[in-house]
Amino acid sequence: MRGLMQDVPLTVDRILDHAASWHRSREIVTRDLAGRITRSDYAAVHCLAKRISAALLRDGVGPGDRVATMGWNGDRHLASWYGAAGIGAVLHTLNPRLFGEQIAYIANHAGDRILLADPCRADQIAELLPQVPSIERVIFFCAAGDQPTTSYPALSFDAWLEGTDADTAWGGFDENEACGLCYTSGTTGNPKGVLYSHRSNYLHAMMTLQADALALSARDTVLLVVPMYHANAWGVVYSAPMVGAKLVLPGPRMDGQSIYDLIEAEGVTYSAAVPTVWQGLLQHLRDTGQRFSTLQRVTIGGSAVPESLVRGFAEYGVDVVQGWGMTETSPLATISSPTPEVLAMDADEQVRFKTKQGRLVAGLEFKLVDDAGTRLPHDGQTPGRLLIRGPTITSGYFGGEGGDILDEDGFFDTGDVATLDQYGYMQITDRAKDVVKSGGEWISSIEIENLATAHSAVHIAAVIGVAHPKWDERPILLCQLTPGASATREDLTAFLDGKIARWWMPDDVLFVDEIPLGATGKIDKKLIRQRLAGYVLPFREDAA
Amino acid sequence: MRGLMQDVPLTVDRILDHAASWHRSREIVTRDLAGRITRSDYAAVHCLAKRISAALLRDGVGPGDRVATMGWNGDRHLASWYGAAGIGAVLHTLNPRLFGEQIAYIANHAGDRILLADPCRADQIAELLPQVPSIERVIFFCAAGDQPTTSYPALSFDAWLEGTDADTAWGGFDENEACGLCYTSGTTGNPKGVLYSHRSNYLHAMMTLQADALALSARDTVLLVVPMYHANAWGVVYSAPMVGAKLVLPGPRMDGQSIYDLIEAEGVTYSAAVPTVWQGLLQHLRDTGQRFSTLQRVTIGGSAVPESLVRGFAEYGVDVVQGWGMTETSPLATISSPTPEVLAMDADEQVRFKTKQGRLVAGLEFKLVDDAGTRLPHDGQTPGRLLIRGPTITSGYFGGEGGDILDEDGFFDTGDVATLDQYGYMQITDRAKDVVKSGGEWISSIEIENLATAHSAVHIAAVIGVAHPKWDERPILLCQLTPGASATREDLTAFLDGKIARWWMPDDVLFVDEIPLGATGKIDKKLIRQRLAGYVLPFREDAA
Repeated sequence: MRGLMQDVPLTVDRILDHAASWHRSREIVTRDLAGRITRSDYAAVHCLAKRISAALLRDGVGPGDRVATMGWNGDRHLASWYGAAGIGAVLHTLNPRLFGEQIAYIANHAGDRILLADPCRADQIAELLPQVPSIERVIFFCAAGDQPTTSYPALSFDAWLEGTDADTAWGGFDENEACGLCYTSGTTGNPKGVLYSHRSNYLHAMMTLQADALALSARDTVLLVVPMYHANAWGVVYSAPMVGAKLVLPGPRMDGQSIYDLIEAEGVTYSAAVPTVWQGLLQHLRDTGQRFSTLQRVTIGGSAVPESLVRGFAEYGVDVVQGWGMTETSPLATISSPTPEVLAMDADEQVRFKTKQGRLVAGLEFKLVDDAGTRLPHDGQTPGRLLIRGPTITSGYFGGEGGDILDEDGFFDTGDVATLDQYGYMQITDRAKDVVKSGGEWISSIEIENLATAHSAVHIAAVIGVAHPKWDERPILLCQLTPGASATREDLTAFLDGKIARWWMPDDVLFVDEIPLGATGKIDKKLIRQRLAGYVLPFREDAA
Repeated sequence: MRGLMQDVPLTVDRILDHAASWHRSREIVTRDLAGRITRSDYAAVHCLAKRISAALLRDGVGPGDRVATMGWNGDRHLASWYGAAGIGAVLHTLNPRLFGEQIAYIANHAGDRILLADPCRADQIAELLPQVPSIERVIFFCAAGDQPTTSYPALSFDAWLEGTDADTAWGGFDENEACGLCYTSGTTGNPKGVLYSHRSNYLHAMMTLQADALALSARDTVLLVVPMYHANAWGVVYSAPMVGAKLVLPGPRMDGQSIYDLIEAEGVTYSAAVPTVWQGLLQHLRDTGQRFSTLQRVTIGGSAVPESLVRGFAEYGVDVVQGWGMTETSPLATISSPTPEVLAMDADEQVRFKTKQGRLVAGLEFKLVDDAGTRLPHDGQTPGRLLIRGPTITSGYFGGEGGDILDEDGFFDTGDVATLDQYGYMQITDRAKDVVKSGGEWISSIEIENLATAHSAVHIAAVIGVAHPKWDERPILLCQLTPGASATREDLTAFLDGKIARWWMPDDVLFVDEIPLGATGKIDKKLIRQRLAGYVLPFREDAA
């Protein structure tokens, strides 16, 4: 028997409709590429988005067509998300900081038809266009007078919108229709596209608005530092308008001074960014002796939050909540807000939980399993492969890349190895491909690396597993020393002794001139493994 | 083009699954009918709910079948909601305080097959059963030893669950399937059933969890004073488990002392109830000089929140947020949490906004129209008929009662007349059937009544519209004086003069011995109109 409730689809155009109706004059502040502040509001951005829809329709863009952007966070970029989605087109955020050939691969794979970009991308686009024949039109996010000179046909945003009006009808399609496209560049293989639906984005926004997650309200001023091309902008493009929060869009300047000035000038109460941005901001405060007047809380994600950051913000009266997720999970999946049990602990213990990746948001399910698929205990000790299921989790990649990616129960494998504790906190201990499997037990490469790096002579540490006849794999530690410092194998093992289980102790310590890093600054373990192809483990009678 | 996100239906069984997985040992505290405190937790209630599912299946209950309850708030009642919904049955909360013939009408109309009830309902049920042949089985929420003696076959809860285990599979059906049934007794016609779907209840819980609405978190202890048979329990049966809040279920005792004791004993941080309960609680505090140790905020709904209640709670450091809704709206539709503009006003101005019904929750749409269906301005002045649309709003009543109830745009008519102001606050000024329509303009009967009641001699005031040859209708004021007090027509009109627009001034003031009240304590205007059938307006040259 069907319920007798209204059949209203969860499409994201309704979110901006809501903001424009009920939070009309709440500000949307943009710092543009030149550093100028421009002021808009939800009513004006709604109007702009409607005109973008009209321009797209005029250009022949229809449902399912991909509209790409290469833009910093700003009101025109924001309006484009809704302008495309409102008519059923798919907004595809290209990451302009990728290598040219990656961008070309992605744009081709996506079949982008329209490209909206910041004027500073004019040269990049000149190189891109010959490689991506599907792009029919380039529009720059600028006034007619600011349009860059290009060797290819292009329009300014204002010229493109000329003659459009704001009465384009939105919606009228199923909530499962595609809404947004965001590629994730794995460390192996080609980048893969995650194709969000209206439903997944709408539900994700609602999930993240809970008090234990972002807890945004109409009284918040939200500084969206996370670039809109990064992992669905953590959903803030949807969640902030949903509650009518004031939105501050900072453009490209992410240095401590620029971020601080914006926070103070606009009365920012909440912000979301990756750890490096926050480290720069804290350093700026320490250098200048300045303090926050309005900032209350920040969500940090993108990579693990160091304890120093939690403690640093606490000194300035700002609450840090760690969020964890992936492009494939919309992204927010866990959040480190405290349970009553954690809140009752002393301050140091609480920090330990704040540096975990956090508790699962309602609506999602975790599965922690060993290689055989057997469920593992949630004891905070036993690491396992982390799988996830829910309406905001991807079911497959765009174009069928990667094939059928869900397990028999419909779970997506995050590729992470993690523990889950009795309070529900998840902590990532390794990437599944980097974990060292010794005698059927798992050793966290990341944990040993973090400990080794604490040694004063060690600049960078890397742990990889090498083949072992009895234990399958054993860990070895590679160290790149701080210039001028010295240390021996014995120094390092003595330093680690007592800090890790005995059977975790690396079987060897190698000192190398350089530990190779990938494009995103992460240790390139694939290359290390190649370089160590001929390595043979020293004989250890008591190994493991 | 479909998005590539997982197809996970929004069914409410997942909510209790989540709580049992991630908030296992968070307490659910019940004060039973005898006043005893019993302690359970989400894991145990989940287990109980699964066993209820098994017992229902054993009794032949299947998808769409109605399972009725007549119960106060307690853990067994809570588990029954999920036990029925988990297997696709429909949980139907009967209001045990209605007249016997109303309950019989409703149970018959619903076709209830199973009745779960508090032991104190044994005699009521003896009268009910002969009138409701569809009821196959009666179970009392009690242990085997506490089962009341009855002339009809019945089981204790414990006996009914004997031999069941907790491994019944839940879910596996469409999110649009029916989940709950709640009747609303209009002032005219028979009670009508609102049939919630899994989707509507799930979305409603998410909507109400936002920071501007109930803002519940895992750190909250929620006292659910609102009876579970009242308007879908304001969704708290779903929203509290969704975030893992501790739940306190108070049974039947609603007096100030009992509620206060429970708040203090259990560390309640949040509660939801109708104004009369809160008035009793405040009075208790004043009488005893006690204060709250943990209570932070309360949501008040069910009828308009008097200013005295907002100010009263403020004295005790508790924030009051008014919620508005109807059984037909799941129920929460507006909430009076402040916008930044309101928060910037002085304290008295803020109170004025707290006594409005509040701002629309995202996901819903309002339409404010005149009788011709023309949209009216949101100026805080112009009253109009209030219509509402959204995925948590009813599309029709159970069994087709009332016919096709949506307008051409799919909006539901609330039957209320309201204003909407520039900040988005809705304020109900009248029931549509009670508004006085004078010369095409609307006069709020409620507003004049509230003003007249402020006169020291007036005990109860009622305003109704009577036919007028020129203005269609004109208001007249009926007053029931305070025993021993006296007042004249001139006293009352002088008292109102300057407080209302000149054309709102009642054309006549009648003093009556008794203003008739209905079963729920509201003024029975239908009866007043009948009694005044022969009334003729006095001639007034300057009327309106």
